[in-house]
Amino acid sequence: MSNRIILGIDPGTNITGFGIIASNGKAYKVLATGVLSLTDIEDHHLKLKKIFERMLWLIENYKPDELAIEAPFFGKNVQSMLKLGRAQGVCMAAALYRQIPVFEYSPRKVKLAVTGRGSATKEQVAAMLVHIEGFIQPKTLDATDALAVAVCHCLQKNPEVTANNPLRKKRKSKSNWGDFATQNPERMITK
Amino acid sequence: MSNRIILGIDPGTNITGFGIIASNGKAYKVLATGVLSLTDIEDHHLKLKKIFERMLWLIENYKPDELAIEAPFFGKNVQSMLKLGRAQGVCMAAALYRQIPVFEYSPRKVKLAVTGRGSATKEQVAAMLVHIEGFIQPKTLDATDALAVAVCHCLQKNPEVTANNPLRKKRKSKSNWGDFATQNPERMITK
Repeated sequence: MSNRIILGIDPGTNITGFGIIASNGKAYKVLATGVLSLTDIEDHHLKLKKIFERMLWLIENYKPDELAIEAPFFGKNVQSMLKLGRAQGVCMAAALYRQIPVFEYSPRKVKLAVTGRGSATKEQVAAMLVHIEGFIQPKTLDATDALAVAVCHCLQKNPEVTANNPLRKKRKSKSNWGDFATQNPERMITK
Repeated sequence: MSNRIILGIDPGTNITGFGIIASNGKAYKVLATGVLSLTDIEDHHLKLKKIFERMLWLIENYKPDELAIEAPFFGKNVQSMLKLGRAQGVCMAAALYRQIPVFEYSPRKVKLAVTGRGSATKEQVAAMLVHIEGFIQPKTLDATDALAVAVCHCLQKNPEVTANNPLRKKRKSKSNWGDFATQNPERMITK
């Protein structure tokens, strides 16, 4: 059973998060999550260089088949969008250079895929990801955001994974009041 | 006398212009100008891939010591800035990957350095560049814009080149009325 490896990236010139998952078409598991912190580096070009080098390192070590990247299309202002575009461009360049196809997802689409709500908070996204095999709680939410975009991509590409998705199962059970009532008879008002 | 090679880039996802100059610290000459036209490519990621590959090819063939890039910091809207940022990021990634330092210049600074006027038109910039050794008129103004940013960088880095700059000489002679009067006695009103 051959695994497909998906590298998820949440790019930024201060923090670039990454999350890598393996999927066999029926289920998926986490291989790695982490962040590249660039807050201590003042030089903008050195930040971009570090992002590119880390991307090549991740590609070299995990040999991903696809890159899924979180890509907001709107931002606070043109300057922040230019910086974000550069970080995205650097990440994409590394993947495209190594012949890895790139897929983009808006933050809303990622949240919707993982939590069922497009307006979910970062904490709510992170809370859903703990159910995935191999998940180890990272130190920051930037890493879980990156993992979430990898999961989002996996769910789009594999309907079978979607059907067996532990995240969705969990969500379903919450909204199924019939099951809830059966499992919690003491909470029923019978009088 | 060792030459320094400067690669000038005017990045864009439709047209990316490039201009390469060699400077010996006292004068400079054009080695190449051209454009990478991406208007026929619909896929955004393929455009970025082509830009990265062309950058690597230029670096491989001309072995530039420095990259000078035209970088507007303001644009029409956030979406166009995101696209521009990606194109810039891809160009920078290629240079930084090959250990080539990157320098950025605003369009206004480039125009000011080349024509003496920050608000000069593309045509005025192009008209000044024809005085440089080795210059061959390219088909589009995107190529001259890229050449202009390389010249701008060269002028910033080498005060001696600035003193011997053919562009500046030309500009100076225009405003020096004493020289003009000496060289054109028939145009003097002596009565």
